[in-house]
Amino acid sequence: MAATGASVYSYKYFAVQFPAERPYLAHVEINRPEKLNAFIEPMWFEMRQVFDQLSSDSSVRAIVLTGAGSKAFTAGLDVKQAPLVLFSDKGGSDTARKAVNIRRYIHQFQDCLTAIERCEKPVIAAMHGYSYGFAIDLSAAADVRICTRDVHFSVKEVDIGMAADIGVLSRLPKIVGNFGWVKEVALSARIFGAEEAHRVGFVNSIHDSKEAMVGAALDIASLIAQKSPVAVQGTKELLNWSRDHPIAEGLRYTAVWNSAAIQTGDVSTALMAGIEKRTPTFEKL
Amino acid sequence: MAATGASVYSYKYFAVQFPAERPYLAHVEINRPEKLNAFIEPMWFEMRQVFDQLSSDSSVRAIVLTGAGSKAFTAGLDVKQAPLVLFSDKGGSDTARKAVNIRRYIHQFQDCLTAIERCEKPVIAAMHGYSYGFAIDLSAAADVRICTRDVHFSVKEVDIGMAADIGVLSRLPKIVGNFGWVKEVALSARIFGAEEAHRVGFVNSIHDSKEAMVGAALDIASLIAQKSPVAVQGTKELLNWSRDHPIAEGLRYTAVWNSAAIQTGDVSTALMAGIEKRTPTFEKL
Amino acid sequence: MAATGASVYSYKYFAVQFPAERPYLAHVEINRPEKLNAFIEPMWFEMRQVFDQLSSDSSVRAIVLTGAGSKAFTAGLDVKQAPLVLFSDKGGSDTARKAVNIRRYIHQFQDCLTAIERCEKPVIAAMHGYSYGFAIDLSAAADVRICTRDVHFSVKEVDIGMAADIGVLSRLPKIVGNFGWVKEVALSARIFGAEEAHRVGFVNSIHDSKEAMVGAALDIASLIAQKSPVAVQGTKELLNWSRDHPIAEGLRYTAVWNSAAIQTGDVSTALMAGIEKRTPTFEKL
Amino acid sequence: MAATGASVYSYKYFAVQFPAERPYLAHVEINRPEKLNAFIEPMWFEMRQVFDQLSSDSSVRAIVLTGAGSKAFTAGLDVKQAPLVLFSDKGGSDTARKAVNIRRYIHQFQDCLTAIERCEKPVIAAMHGYSYGFAIDLSAAADVRICTRDVHFSVKEVDIGMAADIGVLSRLPKIVGNFGWVKEVALSARIFGAEEAHRVGFVNSIHDSKEAMVGAALDIASLIAQKSPVAVQGTKELLNWSRDHPIAEGLRYTAVWNSAAIQTGDVSTALMAGIEKRTPTFEKL
Amino acid sequence: MAATGASVYSYKYFAVQFPAERPYLAHVEINRPEKLNAFIEPMWFEMRQVFDQLSSDSSVRAIVLTGAGSKAFTAGLDVKQAPLVLFSDKGGSDTARKAVNIRRYIHQFQDCLTAIERCEKPVIAAMHGYSYGFAIDLSAAADVRICTRDVHFSVKEVDIGMAADIGVLSRLPKIVGNFGWVKEVALSARIFGAEEAHRVGFVNSIHDSKEAMVGAALDIASLIAQKSPVAVQGTKELLNWSRDHPIAEGLRYTAVWNSAAIQTGDVSTALMAGIEKRTPTFEKL
Amino acid sequence: MAATGASVYSYKYFAVQFPAERPYLAHVEINRPEKLNAFIEPMWFEMRQVFDQLSSDSSVRAIVLTGAGSKAFTAGLDVKQAPLVLFSDKGGSDTARKAVNIRRYIHQFQDCLTAIERCEKPVIAAMHGYSYGFAIDLSAAADVRICTRDVHFSVKEVDIGMAADIGVLSRLPKIVGNFGWVKEVALSARIFGAEEAHRVGFVNSIHDSKEAMVGAALDIASLIAQKSPVAVQGTKELLNWSRDHPIAEGLRYTAVWNSAAIQTGDVSTALMAGIEKRTPTFEKL
Repeated sequence: MAATGASVYSYKYFAVQFPAERPYLAHVEINRPEKLNAFIEPMWFEMRQVFDQLSSDSSVRAIVLTGAGSKAFTAGLDVKQAPLVLFSDKGGSDTARKAVNIRRYIHQFQDCLTAIERCEKPVIAAMHGYSYGFAIDLSAAADVRICTRDVHFSVKEVDIGMAADIGVLSRLPKIVGNFGWVKEVALSARIFGAEEAHRVGFVNSIHDSKEAMVGAALDIASLIAQKSPVAVQGTKELLNWSRDHPIAEGLRYTAVWNSAAIQTGDVSTALMAGIEKRTPTFEKL
Repeated sequence: MAATGASVYSYKYFAVQFPAERPYLAHVEINRPEKLNAFIEPMWFEMRQVFDQLSSDSSVRAIVLTGAGSKAFTAGLDVKQAPLVLFSDKGGSDTARKAVNIRRYIHQFQDCLTAIERCEKPVIAAMHGYSYGFAIDLSAAADVRICTRDVHFSVKEVDIGMAADIGVLSRLPKIVGNFGWVKEVALSARIFGAEEAHRVGFVNSIHDSKEAMVGAALDIASLIAQKSPVAVQGTKELLNWSRDHPIAEGLRYTAVWNSAAIQTGDVSTALMAGIEKRTPTFEKL
Repeated sequence: MAATGASVYSYKYFAVQFPAERPYLAHVEINRPEKLNAFIEPMWFEMRQVFDQLSSDSSVRAIVLTGAGSKAFTAGLDVKQAPLVLFSDKGGSDTARKAVNIRRYIHQFQDCLTAIERCEKPVIAAMHGYSYGFAIDLSAAADVRICTRDVHFSVKEVDIGMAADIGVLSRLPKIVGNFGWVKEVALSARIFGAEEAHRVGFVNSIHDSKEAMVGAALDIASLIAQKSPVAVQGTKELLNWSRDHPIAEGLRYTAVWNSAAIQTGDVSTALMAGIEKRTPTFEKL
Repeated sequence: MAATGASVYSYKYFAVQFPAERPYLAHVEINRPEKLNAFIEPMWFEMRQVFDQLSSDSSVRAIVLTGAGSKAFTAGLDVKQAPLVLFSDKGGSDTARKAVNIRRYIHQFQDCLTAIERCEKPVIAAMHGYSYGFAIDLSAAADVRICTRDVHFSVKEVDIGMAADIGVLSRLPKIVGNFGWVKEVALSARIFGAEEAHRVGFVNSIHDSKEAMVGAALDIASLIAQKSPVAVQGTKELLNWSRDHPIAEGLRYTAVWNSAAIQTGDVSTALMAGIEKRTPTFEKL
Repeated sequence: MAATGASVYSYKYFAVQFPAERPYLAHVEINRPEKLNAFIEPMWFEMRQVFDQLSSDSSVRAIVLTGAGSKAFTAGLDVKQAPLVLFSDKGGSDTARKAVNIRRYIHQFQDCLTAIERCEKPVIAAMHGYSYGFAIDLSAAADVRICTRDVHFSVKEVDIGMAADIGVLSRLPKIVGNFGWVKEVALSARIFGAEEAHRVGFVNSIHDSKEAMVGAALDIASLIAQKSPVAVQGTKELLNWSRDHPIAEGLRYTAVWNSAAIQTGDVSTALMAGIEKRTPTFEKL
Repeated sequence: MAATGASVYSYKYFAVQFPAERPYLAHVEINRPEKLNAFIEPMWFEMRQVFDQLSSDSSVRAIVLTGAGSKAFTAGLDVKQAPLVLFSDKGGSDTARKAVNIRRYIHQFQDCLTAIERCEKPVIAAMHGYSYGFAIDLSAAADVRICTRDVHFSVKEVDIGMAADIGVLSRLPKIVGNFGWVKEVALSARIFGAEEAHRVGFVNSIHDSKEAMVGAALDIASLIAQKSPVAVQGTKELLNWSRDHPIAEGLRYTAVWNSAAIQTGDVSTALMAGIEKRTPTFEKL
């Protein structure tokens, strides 16, 4: 419950706030600034918990995700604590058994990020400073991305000898409609900045400071949080489904979805408020 | 028949013209300017008739779609005449029966817009002024979109308490390669203008006045209408198919399609005209 | 073998070089400048051989594709030598039998271009001057596209009375996230230039001269060639797979792929080199 | 309305009855026995009307489809009235234009049969005597097939020089899980009988006479008609969807579907009737 | 761990045994015989735990699933404890909010059954007596089904006013290649017996008593447990993937999968044992 | 050319005959009887050549595939010559590089079998005696399978420590509609006979001797060879496409395919012959 959030949302590596002046918002901050918010294994499991909890918290309608401190959204995976499975003998020396363990591990790791995508509430990722590797995977699972002017992005994985496997290669071609650019940055790991990210559509807007950016993220989130949660959560789901299906199947799924959703009282609430030119109030969801 | 179009194409809410100086073109205008071209139920059924008829009218090779009057392409659905099914007792009080009726209704409504997509001739939507809600659904089913500098766009549905269900959520992610932007405008219903629409690829060009825009739309349509209709209609179909399928299936369908289409005499007609540097003439289709 | 490339890579219409100062690179040049590099039938079969050979040549890690001479990347298919099958009586006069022959022919032709896509090494297409028809099909099968400021592009096929069938209609909607623009240029065959191509995401960058462009292409390729080939080839494959599948299937395929790939020694090689701040050296692949 | 069916359901080639003693049933009979119920063009359009009408007739919950007379369910298409389009000059002599007309024609013809599949009420096809060509296409679009012991089946199309194109090749592999058998009968057009059809799963049961068979079909239909129409129509839809999708997508669509459907009062009606051991009564749908 | 299974596998409604004389087998028994093994909500969550645990227990290579007592595998859901969500006011009175809660609930419930399908070890379901409703959903998620001669099956859901939504409608069409039969039993809820189930392919074999059946199930499981677990688990995964994909994608995924799996030492272990005509011993997985 | 087949179809491990009394037939026999027709590497490459050649040989309309000698169709892969790549150091010791080589190798091997599926002419596999492992993979790529009463089948791969990877796991679930049975035989490698194979639909018929079986295969092939090759080859293609796609996509592809195919003169040839009750003669294809 957001109302009693302090106790319930007690995490080690994530600060979860519910800004008093911003009803229905949650602000999640990656909170390991002394290490540039670099991720170690317990952090991704914790992150999954955070978003699974917010997904069903009816006091929350939109979420902002940021990184603590002035230097980085996240510098990526903490390579000094690189997944031990890769170098350990779990699964023994048999290549196939090792592969099974690695596959299970990757699936689990992917699932921690997919928690952001399957979270029923929209997620705005606001990125500043170092935003490398894992930062791209993670924000690609969010709904909207914005950044500061000083951000440094890199799809970093090829630089550590591997194809990225926790989401960026699957998600980036679906969110940026410039496949040549996606190929280039993923194959070369070169750093790119805010302007380029904006031009190709990776981020929606650029801001002059972290403060300005967080404010803008909260504004987008607030705007969304004022709408009917039936409408908003349905829109997120239907856009994600449509991304992955032919248009005919998008239309069909949409009709089935709305055959229940449109029976909501929110439609008349919204229409009435529109006619009376006042802000509507919607029940929790 | 376009030649005798006046009698055949007699519609209440749509003006269909065949500009004398523009062979093979049809100009369809939404014609309820006193209500900002807002749609009421009979209009979408009529619109389906218009496009179904044009689809098989061999005198037509390209279509321009505009809104009458100076104020709006269309302000969207006429909420004062909001679909009665939503509030009526059709289907009685049983939620499931009501859902069945709603689903059938949405499918039918969707089909009226899909008529634009399945129309075998390319459709250029030219938008000015208020272009809200239904305007986006409708133009997303067209092949090319252009606009005036003063246009106001909004994916309006969340503002009336519902996820959009007649096409925009299924089509927008496939025509604009900027999923974060699609998410933002669909989740927030915020208004956006011509420049933004052009930058993200929702419209192909911006024009200074409605007249200039309509002229430009007719120019694009004319250019297309001068080409072989076998080539043009095949191109529309193959692009739509490819959008919805993996590349290998795009290639395969294309080869089967062209195994008949390429046997057309239009190929030699076009090649000869090219060599002789004159405009080719093609049979109707 | 690249080391003894001169004898092995002996082609009639393609010059294949392995720049001494650029380890692991291949530079393929379409070499029929006296005809603006227009393609005749033997050329596409030869092109397939070139890329199939490079795909498994472990001395090659990235490929640059250019057109010889100052005037054209390629002016497209040499229409004076238009595929005879179209006008010949192969398959006799029976429409269905003729269709079978045409279909087989198209599949074979498509496969010659798909050789670029299935080539396991990234391909950078660098285009200047006339880049019409076949030039678009061909470069759309490459991974990255760049161009000179003076380039002239056109999806030319409708101008010769046919829907394009060797790849552009299947690939363009997946690499350029602006479906209205794709529709317009494919339906109208109008010429477009470097700025427009860059704005919509068809090319990654624009260069002032052919020399500058080729240098830039070689730089991108060199950057990629310095990375682990396990990482690079996996990244190309996973991006292509993900383009064609829902995100959940992209993630799953990726996990299975990396269950073997991540067992490579390249990961520790790369990590060690990173820590020691030196350039890593990777085994061939 | 079934209640006043006589006037509403007035067709030339189809007899539509609503057996008084069998509530909620419709019995559709192909009614051209003097020609072995062979189909001519107006018949398939009429058939589409019949099933579209029954689909939304809330007095109908299940449908039995039979052929009039003692000799045939249907002998197939009436070849003496073979589709004129094939031999006419519609579309002129240009192969591509002719192909366009043929394609439109086939799509329309297919759609007349698909009317049976998209009909929201289950359809039981009961076949006797000659059941050739079109008989297989048509019954493959039904939900359940039964037959008499004397039935003669044949996938006849290759015998008239063409691959079947109105449904059997698309549907048979999905309803009979014996792909080798499907291949054999479709490639050879050989006649097969009731036992074979039952063994491979093309029919559910075999009956000794037409009367016995029709009685059995009505019994199955009656049994279905006693159930909740919300449950029955949902089951038909979900089975058809699941047939065409991976299991994960079947499950997901099902959950969305039932989120509305399960709110029906029919669940408690059925549970109460079960506890009280009486036959439940359900509202129309 | 199976070795210390007693303490680890302590469940309330499921008895999990590791037969001493049957290495690598787990025998899971639904254990609420006094209620005909009817399922109440805690049971399906517990069932998920059981199969998730077995999936990663390297001491287990194959699993047999049975129902305790002489009367029933399971009589289905315990309707007296029907899911409260259906009748409660969770989600309040708003239809859309209620639908959201129902959908979440169904997804969770489905997931409990999918645990059987995603369990990496093959599962043999052995059914006797009453095997209604949930029994079909549950066994359809298993890999192999066998039964006693006295079994009574029914796809029961339409009898309680709803389309089945926890798996049977999605899975049955993929495991039984007789779509007409699937339609009939799902639409009518009629009871069918062992012979019919065997004829259509729902069960692999019929046994004269529960004891004989359980013995047969253990024999199949033992046979599988003697094989290389790398081979067995890969086979389960590849068959499930292939069921849901076109053949070309089945082949491709298989090749990627085996590029790691085939590097196992189990291949030479098995080949050597074959040559030396002895039973091979494989490492755990 | 079949007419001069002796010289053209000169293979080492396959005997290809064109029975004089059976026009348009090819009889391919696996010809290594002294080793129970076990496959060594050169054989599968040769097999691909055989079927690629037959696919485009217009003198051939149907193909029968058998194994030489009295003992076996094929005993499978010759394990004494097991693929060296598995145990060699090609790709060195790096697991990932080894995986790349294995993957390429499997793809190539799969492609040799897929040659049977993509062969445009129907293939009847007639199996006797030992038909293990590779025999199942191979015949699953054929269109029709028949066998002798004494045949021994086994999906053998798990017995050598690996999941089958050259086709059986991808194809078997699509040709046998009994997924539980497919799972059981693939997971256990147990031997099954003719009756069981027939009951589940793996083979179409059982014959008392090899001679009787080959005669029956030739009869089926002859029957097919008498039909229009336009119709037959289209039927094979459309059935394979439909197997892999939803019904709506099957219908659509079919309509496009037939828009050319149905323009064949074979339709009137066949209709005329039917009316005149004589055997039609069709042009080669």
